[in-house]
Amino acid sequence: MATQEEFFSGIPKIPYLPSAGPGDVMCFKHYNAEEVLMERKMEEWLRFSVCYWHSFCGTGADPFGSPTLHRPWNEGNPMESAKKRLRAAFEFFTKLGVKYYTFHDRDMAPEGSTLEESNRNLNELTDLALQLQNQTGIKVLWVTCNLFAHPRYMNGAATNPDCHVLAYAGAQVKKGLDTAKKLGAENFVFWGGREGFLSFHNTDVAAELKHMANFFKMAVKYKEKIGLKCQFLIEPKPKEPCKHQYDYDAMSVMGFLKHYGLENDFKLNIEPNHTTLAGHSYEHDVVMASAFGMLGSVDANTGSPDLGWDTDQFPMDIRNTTLVMKTIVEQGGLQPGGLNFDAKVRRESTDLEDLFISHIGAMDSFARGLRNAVCIIEDGLLAGMVKERYSSYSHGIGKKVEEGSASLEEMEAFIKQNGEPKVTSGKQEKHECIFNRYI
Amino acid sequence: MATQEEFFSGIPKIPYLPSAGPGDVMCFKHYNAEEVLMERKMEEWLRFSVCYWHSFCGTGADPFGSPTLHRPWNEGNPMESAKKRLRAAFEFFTKLGVKYYTFHDRDMAPEGSTLEESNRNLNELTDLALQLQNQTGIKVLWVTCNLFAHPRYMNGAATNPDCHVLAYAGAQVKKGLDTAKKLGAENFVFWGGREGFLSFHNTDVAAELKHMANFFKMAVKYKEKIGLKCQFLIEPKPKEPCKHQYDYDAMSVMGFLKHYGLENDFKLNIEPNHTTLAGHSYEHDVVMASAFGMLGSVDANTGSPDLGWDTDQFPMDIRNTTLVMKTIVEQGGLQPGGLNFDAKVRRESTDLEDLFISHIGAMDSFARGLRNAVCIIEDGLLAGMVKERYSSYSHGIGKKVEEGSASLEEMEAFIKQNGEPKVTSGKQEKHECIFNRYI
Amino acid sequence: MATQEEFFSGIPKIPYLPSAGPGDVMCFKHYNAEEVLMERKMEEWLRFSVCYWHSFCGTGADPFGSPTLHRPWNEGNPMESAKKRLRAAFEFFTKLGVKYYTFHDRDMAPEGSTLEESNRNLNELTDLALQLQNQTGIKVLWVTCNLFAHPRYMNGAATNPDCHVLAYAGAQVKKGLDTAKKLGAENFVFWGGREGFLSFHNTDVAAELKHMANFFKMAVKYKEKIGLKCQFLIEPKPKEPCKHQYDYDAMSVMGFLKHYGLENDFKLNIEPNHTTLAGHSYEHDVVMASAFGMLGSVDANTGSPDLGWDTDQFPMDIRNTTLVMKTIVEQGGLQPGGLNFDAKVRRESTDLEDLFISHIGAMDSFARGLRNAVCIIEDGLLAGMVKERYSSYSHGIGKKVEEGSASLEEMEAFIKQNGEPKVTSGKQEKHECIFNRYI
Amino acid sequence: MATQEEFFSGIPKIPYLPSAGPGDVMCFKHYNAEEVLMERKMEEWLRFSVCYWHSFCGTGADPFGSPTLHRPWNEGNPMESAKKRLRAAFEFFTKLGVKYYTFHDRDMAPEGSTLEESNRNLNELTDLALQLQNQTGIKVLWVTCNLFAHPRYMNGAATNPDCHVLAYAGAQVKKGLDTAKKLGAENFVFWGGREGFLSFHNTDVAAELKHMANFFKMAVKYKEKIGLKCQFLIEPKPKEPCKHQYDYDAMSVMGFLKHYGLENDFKLNIEPNHTTLAGHSYEHDVVMASAFGMLGSVDANTGSPDLGWDTDQFPMDIRNTTLVMKTIVEQGGLQPGGLNFDAKVRRESTDLEDLFISHIGAMDSFARGLRNAVCIIEDGLLAGMVKERYSSYSHGIGKKVEEGSASLEEMEAFIKQNGEPKVTSGKQEKHECIFNRYI
Repeated sequence: MATQEEFFSGIPKIPYLPSAGPGDVMCFKHYNAEEVLMERKMEEWLRFSVCYWHSFCGTGADPFGSPTLHRPWNEGNPMESAKKRLRAAFEFFTKLGVKYYTFHDRDMAPEGSTLEESNRNLNELTDLALQLQNQTGIKVLWVTCNLFAHPRYMNGAATNPDCHVLAYAGAQVKKGLDTAKKLGAENFVFWGGREGFLSFHNTDVAAELKHMANFFKMAVKYKEKIGLKCQFLIEPKPKEPCKHQYDYDAMSVMGFLKHYGLENDFKLNIEPNHTTLAGHSYEHDVVMASAFGMLGSVDANTGSPDLGWDTDQFPMDIRNTTLVMKTIVEQGGLQPGGLNFDAKVRRESTDLEDLFISHIGAMDSFARGLRNAVCIIEDGLLAGMVKERYSSYSHGIGKKVEEGSASLEEMEAFIKQNGEPKVTSGKQEKHECIFNRYI
Repeated sequence: MATQEEFFSGIPKIPYLPSAGPGDVMCFKHYNAEEVLMERKMEEWLRFSVCYWHSFCGTGADPFGSPTLHRPWNEGNPMESAKKRLRAAFEFFTKLGVKYYTFHDRDMAPEGSTLEESNRNLNELTDLALQLQNQTGIKVLWVTCNLFAHPRYMNGAATNPDCHVLAYAGAQVKKGLDTAKKLGAENFVFWGGREGFLSFHNTDVAAELKHMANFFKMAVKYKEKIGLKCQFLIEPKPKEPCKHQYDYDAMSVMGFLKHYGLENDFKLNIEPNHTTLAGHSYEHDVVMASAFGMLGSVDANTGSPDLGWDTDQFPMDIRNTTLVMKTIVEQGGLQPGGLNFDAKVRRESTDLEDLFISHIGAMDSFARGLRNAVCIIEDGLLAGMVKERYSSYSHGIGKKVEEGSASLEEMEAFIKQNGEPKVTSGKQEKHECIFNRYI
Repeated sequence: MATQEEFFSGIPKIPYLPSAGPGDVMCFKHYNAEEVLMERKMEEWLRFSVCYWHSFCGTGADPFGSPTLHRPWNEGNPMESAKKRLRAAFEFFTKLGVKYYTFHDRDMAPEGSTLEESNRNLNELTDLALQLQNQTGIKVLWVTCNLFAHPRYMNGAATNPDCHVLAYAGAQVKKGLDTAKKLGAENFVFWGGREGFLSFHNTDVAAELKHMANFFKMAVKYKEKIGLKCQFLIEPKPKEPCKHQYDYDAMSVMGFLKHYGLENDFKLNIEPNHTTLAGHSYEHDVVMASAFGMLGSVDANTGSPDLGWDTDQFPMDIRNTTLVMKTIVEQGGLQPGGLNFDAKVRRESTDLEDLFISHIGAMDSFARGLRNAVCIIEDGLLAGMVKERYSSYSHGIGKKVEEGSASLEEMEAFIKQNGEPKVTSGKQEKHECIFNRYI
Repeated sequence: MATQEEFFSGIPKIPYLPSAGPGDVMCFKHYNAEEVLMERKMEEWLRFSVCYWHSFCGTGADPFGSPTLHRPWNEGNPMESAKKRLRAAFEFFTKLGVKYYTFHDRDMAPEGSTLEESNRNLNELTDLALQLQNQTGIKVLWVTCNLFAHPRYMNGAATNPDCHVLAYAGAQVKKGLDTAKKLGAENFVFWGGREGFLSFHNTDVAAELKHMANFFKMAVKYKEKIGLKCQFLIEPKPKEPCKHQYDYDAMSVMGFLKHYGLENDFKLNIEPNHTTLAGHSYEHDVVMASAFGMLGSVDANTGSPDLGWDTDQFPMDIRNTTLVMKTIVEQGGLQPGGLNFDAKVRRESTDLEDLFISHIGAMDSFARGLRNAVCIIEDGLLAGMVKERYSSYSHGIGKKVEEGSASLEEMEAFIKQNGEPKVTSGKQEKHECIFNRYI
């Protein structure tokens, strides 16, 4: 890219300087991409990805204020600007040292006045993206279709009461899957931001859910037809922009998939800020999806527990990153998924360097989480305590329960013979203290 | 019961006095049991049930205060008191004019020092209950086992890390099912108050969920074995007493049932105060369970939207009761389920008459809700608007989507031919205005 | 306006048709402006106001979607469009039959590239506004300055860490007060949307609160200087767009005013959707502000209790409107304040008629609330019960407590003489049942 | 205490072993009482206190379950048991190495059937407490009266509609103040658990607030009369057990105190679990109270952000403890207040050692927080960034605003001369990254 415009001039490739002082925020102090932990490089455990929409399309506008982020790549007509943006993004990915990025179709190329024009725009930009991918070795973690921003989707895409709109969404997803194949995306995400409702009064939920399932089935069929190998992911979110979204949380989505026979075709992309909006703890959906073998990828961000909307902040809490990384390492990693920074600089963070500072801070936070998780897992102390706690299911009547061969009559007989169980402390605070020692 | 002690002396059978003034709170102004609406009596649509625990075992204690409710039936030794309580309850049911009641095993008879003693206590009390049922015609809407109050269940019942405790729960459920058969209960409820966790640190969620599923399977098998005909119900609640309960909400429970192949053996008992704690609107789980054909019964109560715990207040909001009754009437009624008042007088409502006033107020609120719902349904105006809104799925490409025979290629072809969909107002405020006209 | 463009053609002045059917949504069924209740016309009790920003500047954009509302007045250059908008608004006010409107400086006239240009734009538009006010008799309920949308205010206006920004806000407020005088506004509102913080890390809260107080003092001084007679109002909101706003709720604002000696210069403009975001019940801040003699005006809207952000929906719940109107009538009305519809049609409600339907529905809801409140107050039953409940403070030791002349020693002596108080039921459910009878 | 019964046999005085492994939970790894940081011993900065109610009176009962915690001191008649409990508590304080404790009057001695009997019981126990205090050097951080648990207080204490109940509360507070003097308590706390309401319907909030203020004034007068030197504290809590408590949060309480002229007689005791229930971030009320010079003491605990009730968990999050300690050190310490562990072991943590583990874990968490805070403050990096951010208020027009001598006219003139302010990044993520480096 030597002869190209440089967007982040003065910023070199971010180095790893573990002994840097607190004020040195333009270096990694914990993330050392090549360092090996538990037989895998940090970059392989973490599989960081930068998201295109917040970091390169974000304007800083909020419902109460105008854009604040004026980026040097927003110059020229829409297609020119889109190309500058793409070059700026690859410069950023490279300097930051991440290997993956994610994008919506409409982030990368502007929507045209017809589907055909939109597709042509996308073709032109993905040609450039492919070239930049090949030059840099950076890959697409996942691609997704924006089925929520255009006014046509205001009443839903796959759940729109008007099938004409569903058809538009279908056409757009077809192109999205073609794009995923073209760029070698490792995953394809569905986020149903408008698949829900604002009011029960005007909504037929049974019909909408069925349409959504049938929509997914069309996507699965087309994916197979074109030989696209990527993993399909659904990203739960309980509300916002809708009052209620069908993909409320991990358990809801897994239930939906099971109900419609789609459970083998999809995994979940969990975003903790969505998890907390659904009333769960930060790590809840990551843990639950993993427990069911359905954790496919993570949108690494955070919210504020005292706020009721998605703030998409950069994750900086080491406790949270440790809990997430512990689950990920325990399931053997996230591949082909990754940790996608679906996070945006605050609209007040108007300096270009803030984009770097925030990503570095989040990557370091996850690196610390990974290091902590590896210590916890290698020590085995906490895992041993949990194993011991459930040990009664490994023999005798417990084993029969575990295997599903016991009966209520046997339970009663066991109690008549053995009486009251002994009291066993849950030792929660002990677990917490031990966990704290690793942080 | 002529020669028996009267507990609510001075209170007659509650009459229907539609023109009574605001200050006359000891009569029904809207609930007229025998009145027929849409070819069914009000009492058949509403199937009201009084719950035993709050109304007859409740003490008014809360986490910050001692008991305030001193009831005349709490005299004598535990078994004597239990019998007085039962007689008082039947006097109340009769005077109030409800045909159903619900209870936990441990509400009706005190827990003994061994399972055998507990069972004997329960036998003795259910003998009396059966006699009172026969005398009065009052029936059991549902029975449930209390698998959460005894200290042995502090770490869970069917999900306890110690199989000895699970066995105790199994023995108790076996007796509960026997009791359901003895008393002719129309339903049997499982509420998993301790089936969840306080901390991920010490919990193996995958193991616990499997144990819970296997526990349910044992119950289904035993139910079949003894020829018990009642409907099994699971009651979702997201949290409290646990930090997280597995039966989080309707969608979670339906997903769980589907995952473990239990979906034909259970329906849902929805409690709106639990629904709101899960972050949904009051009517959400009622509507969603019904949409999936899984709405079995309703625990009719309410909470305060500004509070984060279950307040189990009597439902008094006509908008809410209208929304719930509209769903119930649309699905053809709740039978064999009903509307169970899982609600308690405030601990400050210390007069015996407050028990009547609160039930009457709630029954009248549901009667108003039923009347409103019947008007809405008979008019057909709102339903017609919804039907029209989804009419595109009844022909052409919409019909193919509906039937699951469409493809993404067809979607794209349709858009290439037909272009942008037209904008259609969702008309939410119009629906709200029309709905308001019926309230 | 005979020769002017008509924006809502085909829509006549909205009539009062009390017997219209549910489907007739373009008429009032409850609001009868001239009807007298408790010696005052309905329009005098209700003092409805339409807000300019949502209804005439709103685009339907949300953080996840583009504009959906394409209005016929958005044509031509910004100043032409601003004038069309103003004419459309007055046509709307007139057809709807409201006597008041509210606006931000920047709603009415576009911001220029300098303060001087912005002021010239505003002058030009307020000339037209004055003319239209004179033609129609419609008045300004309140005017406010938009100190949050422009990027310069991203870190706060009166609480900005950079005094240069505070100065800009001051200049803008000076012009706003001049405008209030020019148009005869009856109130002037301060809403501190950016007066708060996103993070404690970079914030000096003590400094910011002091600056905000000093800013208000400057406004008070200038108001007095120019002889502006209107009431100053502060509108509390706990969060959004900030993580935390200093004007959190009614009690916080009243405490702030008292702390800085501003309590005689300001009253409160309460918005119930903000109240619920602060964790209170819908009517809480209206009641509390009124109890302290500080309720100045009400931004009549509603949110969804299951959502954590401001949805600014039209208020349609009769229970809520009854509670609010009961407080307003009890304090003798809101004048010079009013009921301002700070509410927006859903972004999916794209028809022009939806603007009418939603306002009509809300006005009818408040009219029903007023009618209910008048019944409750004229009956006196509930008020009498409350008075009786506190009657012990009208004599003896209670009177001394009331007057502040009692001592702990007297309390002890009283108890030593009189022993344990008797138990008195709070009768909450009885109050609820009686209240329900009026709805 | 050599010849006394030992309750925690086998547990020695908890040592400081900084290099102990994760599994060694019965030692301090961070808290080193005598170590000096910023010229003060750790124990002086931290002033830890154990609370009596949770740790020695707690039973593990919750609204859904029976007691689980069976303590060896709960033997004998109530007065015998009370004395055993007191001895056990002092053994615990001593072995743990804390210098302070806190209690409610009714924790220490059982309520009698009359006020006189209650007072006699309290006298007898406080005689013993005084003796144990003298033997051990352990002191009372604060005492408080339990004005919420007895049924007489169900409708409030100082805000009860019946003045007879207020009088009882007054008599109890009089004795409480006498007790505070007898035991040399350094503070006296008022927590208004029942000072609020469940329903507006039956409540006269203006009357209740006035009564509460007059009640506090009686307490102030009696305190002065008996020459009691301790600091009065009010502890805010927004809700639970009431639907709404008047002492909602720090800002509400400070506003109340100011309104009634009590601001010089009280400071605040902030409990972060109450802060989060009021919708704020963990540290919010600590920071705000400190900013107004009103932070008197801290009830050191935590809740779960996903739960809507007070869980009173032991604080284990280093980020939170760092934020709190930073504020405390910046204001020069909490004395005469302290860090009181208003926290309880989970009801499942049934081992006696869990009491130690949980306190040790919390003390170590606060010790880590203190160490982090000291580093942050001594480095001065973050403080310098904040100071720089507000530097415009130290000269020119900013200084006039700071001093309150500026006018809107000057603001306008400044802008006309200087035009648009420059954009300045808020650098939130940079602050977060730097903060993280200290954790």
